[in-house]
Amino acid sequence: MMKAIWLENQTIRYRDDCPVPRPAVGEALIKIRLAGICGTDLEMCRGYYPFTGIPGHEFVGDVVAAPGALEWVGQRVTGEITIACGTCALCRIGKPKHCLNSRTLGMRDYPGVFAETIVLPVVNLHAVPAGVTDEQAVFTEPLAAALEIQEQVSIHPDSRVLVIGAGRLGLLVSRCLGLTGCHLSVVARQPRACEILTQWGIQTVDASRVLPASADVVVEATGAADGFDLAASAVKPTGTLVMKSTFKGEVSVNFSPLVVNEVTLVGSRCGPFEPALRLLEKHLVDPALLIDASYPLEKGEQAFAHAARPGMLKVLIKP
Amino acid sequence: MMKAIWLENQTIRYRDDCPVPRPAVGEALIKIRLAGICGTDLEMCRGYYPFTGIPGHEFVGDVVAAPGALEWVGQRVTGEITIACGTCALCRIGKPKHCLNSRTLGMRDYPGVFAETIVLPVVNLHAVPAGVTDEQAVFTEPLAAALEIQEQVSIHPDSRVLVIGAGRLGLLVSRCLGLTGCHLSVVARQPRACEILTQWGIQTVDASRVLPASADVVVEATGAADGFDLAASAVKPTGTLVMKSTFKGEVSVNFSPLVVNEVTLVGSRCGPFEPALRLLEKHLVDPALLIDASYPLEKGEQAFAHAARPGMLKVLIKP
Repeated sequence: MMKAIWLENQTIRYRDDCPVPRPAVGEALIKIRLAGICGTDLEMCRGYYPFTGIPGHEFVGDVVAAPGALEWVGQRVTGEITIACGTCALCRIGKPKHCLNSRTLGMRDYPGVFAETIVLPVVNLHAVPAGVTDEQAVFTEPLAAALEIQEQVSIHPDSRVLVIGAGRLGLLVSRCLGLTGCHLSVVARQPRACEILTQWGIQTVDASRVLPASADVVVEATGAADGFDLAASAVKPTGTLVMKSTFKGEVSVNFSPLVVNEVTLVGSRCGPFEPALRLLEKHLVDPALLIDASYPLEKGEQAFAHAARPGMLKVLIKP
Repeated sequence: MMKAIWLENQTIRYRDDCPVPRPAVGEALIKIRLAGICGTDLEMCRGYYPFTGIPGHEFVGDVVAAPGALEWVGQRVTGEITIACGTCALCRIGKPKHCLNSRTLGMRDYPGVFAETIVLPVVNLHAVPAGVTDEQAVFTEPLAAALEIQEQVSIHPDSRVLVIGAGRLGLLVSRCLGLTGCHLSVVARQPRACEILTQWGIQTVDASRVLPASADVVVEATGAADGFDLAASAVKPTGTLVMKSTFKGEVSVNFSPLVVNEVTLVGSRCGPFEPALRLLEKHLVDPALLIDASYPLEKGEQAFAHAARPGMLKVLIKP
């Protein structure tokens, strides 16, 4: 038996009677060092996704067993969240992240990381470099998601870029974009987010002062309808609007200006882990600034309540 | 005085008392040979755009005067519809089509082509090759709009492409895409459109038989909410949804699957005239199949009523 946080009927509770998972060949058993609560975890508690089981997908841990892949044993790792089938049309063309039969760590048909141990396919693992602390490594997954924008869209050094929203993900996105040297502004509301951005030398702007048709690239990182409207107004003709957040429910959109102005909208989700780990190793991104608190598994309920408070950035779970 | 079709308060009427326009230096006076009624013209009659004046933007005609650009006199031409300022930020970076101070032929602050003569800047003109008939050349503008998709999105020979909507523009889009050798299907309803597609060797499919996540590229060419929903369902993860039509009013969209599947949405409007003229010259596209009828200016009201009937493709105006 092991300790874990359990989600059922939109309610979080601590359990000490979860079975310890057993790795098959090609899988690793990982002892969790540290895990992070993400916006999606909070959304699942609000019924956005239906999920019953152990939530959580941001983690760093140690491989304690790996049948058929012994070279992984003893390594400190983080891991990608999509468990792909390996045989569908998208897996076959090298896009396992978009596997048609995918399961998702702590989100869909697969138990997550708010537990003492997890099992994950070794193909999902990335070794954490020695110079990266656990408190940094636990941000690898959201940092990779932030970097996905630069995988999808060419950010030029003289691009004018606007990020709308400076929550957990918006801040990491802003930090990565700032590293390109582009002309960056961020619409931020919470004083703490503004302080972090200022510390990173990134300019903040009030939503009411964003000029229409002023940005080559706009990143929508609020997941709210008014964020989308502001993004659609701020993007230049032939510019790009990146949708970095999922939206709750439907959004009413006037597509005609987007068609007439030939705007490109890009949906953006999970990203590349290796460059995220490189940025952490080089100390070019220090996400530990975003940490608000850390709780043991036994206090999972308090941890989730803490993370859900307005303006909170990152609450960690330390088994 | 000259004859023209006049749009005011969403009503079309014939006038014989319009002043003949006078070209300034850098402009051409063009005698219209043939003009085409476009979906946008019909939308203006329904109050979609506010416009008072002579509508129409698809034309072929003869340059009869061109102060300071005499080499154009006597040439048979068609012309681009955006009258750019030449000095704004977008003109300066070589995107006059997206000029921030633009006027638009027969649509915004600029009289259109349903008239005996028009004036247009010579920079907007394209000479029509001798082998192209007037009935073909009058389709240059919508054919260029169809080709804009291939300017924006890489269509590979093994791409699976779905076009939704086989009206005037959807048919031209389908013909151009078909020339790439891609695996193309078109959702068409009207028997005449289906016949033309069959004649072009293009496979039609009923909307109810479109498989989810089946197309690399989907072109939405209906401008209707259910067309968008079908497009969003049909596009594969990491695929591209091209919005080729403007939409009347707002559309309610669930963006979350588009974000999770990292779909790219591309707004697409006016396109390149020279490749359109090359395809016409090489007889690779024969848009004259789409012609339903031709009316003189005096019968403009009947012409518009004819074009607005369900299933009609192209009604021409011959001054």
